[in-house]
Amino acid sequence: MPILGQNQYGKAENRVVRVTRDGATHHIKDLNVSVSLSGDMDEVHYSGSNANVLPTDTTKNTVYAFAKEHGIESAEQFGIHLARHFVTSQEPIHRARVRVEEYAWERIENSGEGAHSFVRKGQETRLAQITYDGEKWEIVSGLKDLVVMNSTNSEFWGYVKDKYTTLPEAYDRILATEVSGRWRFNWTDDEQQMPDWETSYEQVKKHMLQAFAETYSLSLQQTLYAMGARIVDHRDEIDEIRFSLPNKHHFLVDLESFGLKNDNEVYFAADRPYGLIEATVLRDGCEARIPVDLSNL
Amino acid sequence: MPILGQNQYGKAENRVVRVTRDGATHHIKDLNVSVSLSGDMDEVHYSGSNANVLPTDTTKNTVYAFAKEHGIESAEQFGIHLARHFVTSQEPIHRARVRVEEYAWERIENSGEGAHSFVRKGQETRLAQITYDGEKWEIVSGLKDLVVMNSTNSEFWGYVKDKYTTLPEAYDRILATEVSGRWRFNWTDDEQQMPDWETSYEQVKKHMLQAFAETYSLSLQQTLYAMGARIVDHRDEIDEIRFSLPNKHHFLVDLESFGLKNDNEVYFAADRPYGLIEATVLRDGCEARIPVDLSNL
Amino acid sequence: MPILGQNQYGKAENRVVRVTRDGATHHIKDLNVSVSLSGDMDEVHYSGSNANVLPTDTTKNTVYAFAKEHGIESAEQFGIHLARHFVTSQEPIHRARVRVEEYAWERIENSGEGAHSFVRKGQETRLAQITYDGEKWEIVSGLKDLVVMNSTNSEFWGYVKDKYTTLPEAYDRILATEVSGRWRFNWTDDEQQMPDWETSYEQVKKHMLQAFAETYSLSLQQTLYAMGARIVDHRDEIDEIRFSLPNKHHFLVDLESFGLKNDNEVYFAADRPYGLIEATVLRDGCEARIPVDLSNL
Amino acid sequence: MPILGQNQYGKAENRVVRVTRDGATHHIKDLNVSVSLSGDMDEVHYSGSNANVLPTDTTKNTVYAFAKEHGIESAEQFGIHLARHFVTSQEPIHRARVRVEEYAWERIENSGEGAHSFVRKGQETRLAQITYDGEKWEIVSGLKDLVVMNSTNSEFWGYVKDKYTTLPEAYDRILATEVSGRWRFNWTDDEQQMPDWETSYEQVKKHMLQAFAETYSLSLQQTLYAMGARIVDHRDEIDEIRFSLPNKHHFLVDLESFGLKNDNEVYFAADRPYGLIEATVLRDGCEARIPVDLSNL
Repeated sequence: MPILGQNQYGKAENRVVRVTRDGATHHIKDLNVSVSLSGDMDEVHYSGSNANVLPTDTTKNTVYAFAKEHGIESAEQFGIHLARHFVTSQEPIHRARVRVEEYAWERIENSGEGAHSFVRKGQETRLAQITYDGEKWEIVSGLKDLVVMNSTNSEFWGYVKDKYTTLPEAYDRILATEVSGRWRFNWTDDEQQMPDWETSYEQVKKHMLQAFAETYSLSLQQTLYAMGARIVDHRDEIDEIRFSLPNKHHFLVDLESFGLKNDNEVYFAADRPYGLIEATVLRDGCEARIPVDLSNL
Repeated sequence: MPILGQNQYGKAENRVVRVTRDGATHHIKDLNVSVSLSGDMDEVHYSGSNANVLPTDTTKNTVYAFAKEHGIESAEQFGIHLARHFVTSQEPIHRARVRVEEYAWERIENSGEGAHSFVRKGQETRLAQITYDGEKWEIVSGLKDLVVMNSTNSEFWGYVKDKYTTLPEAYDRILATEVSGRWRFNWTDDEQQMPDWETSYEQVKKHMLQAFAETYSLSLQQTLYAMGARIVDHRDEIDEIRFSLPNKHHFLVDLESFGLKNDNEVYFAADRPYGLIEATVLRDGCEARIPVDLSNL
Repeated sequence: MPILGQNQYGKAENRVVRVTRDGATHHIKDLNVSVSLSGDMDEVHYSGSNANVLPTDTTKNTVYAFAKEHGIESAEQFGIHLARHFVTSQEPIHRARVRVEEYAWERIENSGEGAHSFVRKGQETRLAQITYDGEKWEIVSGLKDLVVMNSTNSEFWGYVKDKYTTLPEAYDRILATEVSGRWRFNWTDDEQQMPDWETSYEQVKKHMLQAFAETYSLSLQQTLYAMGARIVDHRDEIDEIRFSLPNKHHFLVDLESFGLKNDNEVYFAADRPYGLIEATVLRDGCEARIPVDLSNL
Repeated sequence: MPILGQNQYGKAENRVVRVTRDGATHHIKDLNVSVSLSGDMDEVHYSGSNANVLPTDTTKNTVYAFAKEHGIESAEQFGIHLARHFVTSQEPIHRARVRVEEYAWERIENSGEGAHSFVRKGQETRLAQITYDGEKWEIVSGLKDLVVMNSTNSEFWGYVKDKYTTLPEAYDRILATEVSGRWRFNWTDDEQQMPDWETSYEQVKKHMLQAFAETYSLSLQQTLYAMGARIVDHRDEIDEIRFSLPNKHHFLVDLESFGLKNDNEVYFAADRPYGLIEATVLRDGCEARIPVDLSNL
């Protein structure tokens, strides 16, 4: 008889918006929360018995109830509340993984009373993944959809040439990518001092952008490593970071047929195919735990 | 024999990035340009004769060549150069319509020399549509993907109730929408003074956001009108504006079953279905010309 | 004071699935229904008074109630029930437009009893738009997302060459497009015999595909006209059809650098930019009423 | 100094269409091919030296050249040619992973000569992942986007109830999901007889659909296991299969307020949130190797 392997279940993409009022000044948190539970779940697969199954509808309800009961201080802290709850309150559940997407908003200035008007920032999507097995925590934060470009200070030459190589070497090119990154914290235990998740996120993003901007690049791999290394060097709370960086090619358009010289001025921004550069950067002595393929959620 | 009606053709979604160098400081314009031409084109439809057809590949080449020859001062100005070229240089082409999407970037601070590092802003997508028939111009600018929210100062009550009505009245709700707007300029003629397209866009966006924020709303229709009216009142160069505003419903979650009171704190952000509110606001005495269904490009 | 122009409102994208049981054999209809109402709606815009406003939530409820009360014989017939209801039951509503997307399913063979298992067909999305002003009907049906390809019998040459033209002429190319089409029926009045909407749709699709397949093409415009003309010629119930046909370019890859001859065998399927060919074909003597820009819904 | 961990690079999403002519009858294969290479790549990350880097542009060229040189018999066979080439021809490359999406087409009947007209089938997207380290092969095939529905023969009851549980038990519900599945072959060595990849795919899809249709379901987990077990039982070439099955909720609409009885006839098809059920099914004695999170490509 075929055997059941790893399995997990839960409610995905619970969209929760939490408003907090400080008098007439409102604050909002806007999250997309996905819960995955695993444990003693063989029977529901083999026979359809739901005796150990907390319904996914209940995990959804819990997300909304906890937004009231605990508030949403940060995506990570909210996920910690949820993951702890499922593992400690349901005996058959041995492990909970909570994934969160967060959408940032900024205030619209308003000549009236109060501060309750917002416009979605729209830049990157912030990510958090919280995993708990009843003993240890694994917190992986991240972001996606952050599009960056250097319009100079990038070269690409000195590479291997085989019979299928036609690419000319480049000594001044655009380097652009859409950053998808995940970073793992060394906070794993309730006994440890918890990081300040909000500050950490802002600092990681800042270092990532600055390393991208300041690296004179001979390859996108070099830039990737510089981004990761700078984060590991500046943020003690982080031991590992993985990036997936599509090389968003900007091809210099050949205008010579029209009697025009294109002095690194006019580019065609291509869609597909694209180079795809992926790598992990680790604090020396630490083990890699972020999967090779970054999940989209 | 079936008859040919309105027809147009061209190259859509030409992605052009233009870098301008002011010493070590770079500026970028990032556009998606679509060209539609029409005129004396019966034969290509009836018999396949391409004798009057400038290839769409040529319209693409022209976009890139003009990015070099004219630069990209603004989406509108760039479209004007293109539309004029096609109508005046090709006898069979009687009308050109150029549509532009523009993606905004902001600078990444950089401790090194020069300023050539950018991060995509990611908020709204700016739009421009330039139409020329050899005599008159029609310029419609716009935006899409601008998501806004008021966390209070919105009510909805006093509506018609029929046998299918179950909605309870609301005296304090979230009002959120994803703004899609198009506005038409009264500049139509080369003899007129051309508006400052960049300033106009920034001002329209500012007024739109402020009207959204400052309107105490009894219906999304009222907010829509307030947004449009404020633009018409403050921007003399604009005669007409049309909005398509999906009501991004945020439903207050019922937490009573869990013994919790939800005092306008926890919301479910719904996807579908959504209310959809669409209307045109006009300067008194002006004619409506923007189509009822806003095009997505 | 700025003036209110055309306006409409309603609930968009109501996803309704209707199961009909013929003993153990089930039938399903899977629709996405959007309702837009207009009429005497000035006050809700100017002052926020909802006295004339049937809530969009009610239009949603009506969609589901009518799926029970009337069943869903076809997208068109269902839309007719809805549009008639809103215009005739609410005095302030003078015009209703119902748009429907329909997703086709096919049966999964099943060794057990009954026939209740389905797999989504996934090919085109069927469309219907029903408009009623209390007197006349306008029915526009359509489809989108139908991707077709001829691997030969397409040429492109004899076109205009200007200073920006670099495209070589082609005497045997792939012709591929993603068909978006809308066709208008000459049924406008309850007194007329109503078309068989389901048969009509199947026949239009069949003629569209055959005309695409059988036309030896000198331009995509010629193919478009052939597709439209064949429908007008074969389907008496249709007076007008408009197509928007992106030219999904398949570029022959240059393999000569690798010592290989590419005899129309290996193609690069490009994303952007793409040629975009749009035109209306009319029954002789009929008026064009389908807008130039096809709506996506 | 921060340490480099797992890394890989290559060209993603090479869109290749291969036409094969059997006289006037054409056959097409339509693929999206992504190549990831890894090996001795530390220097390109640490110093930017490209001395070991075969450009991603070259991997793209190789895809197109191989489509000519080897043809495309199947996605799997094509990936095997590519992976073997990169690992055996480039000393620094120790491992190649090729991912393929395949889009199916069916013929359009054509009254003319020849058979060269196609319409995209549009149902599922077929997937293949080929990994080679110079010694062993790992072939994982799969599919995504396959939407299925049973309109009866599904129940859900007998589950855990905690303080956040409000879901009523269901004794006759719609069960619908969008299947994403990956299955691993036990072919790992050039010495073994290679499976018939095309036949295997068709048979796996057939068994998957039939198991879905024939399982009287007490939970989506049970249906998942039945689908996987049937494939393992019927297809000797497959040792492991993993599914990710979103529960596409169809909620019975409450029509009682309108005096209507909804006897499992009218459903609201919801978008988010959704239950997400994921599990691996293994041949007894075999090891699980497919990652917990299925990659989207």
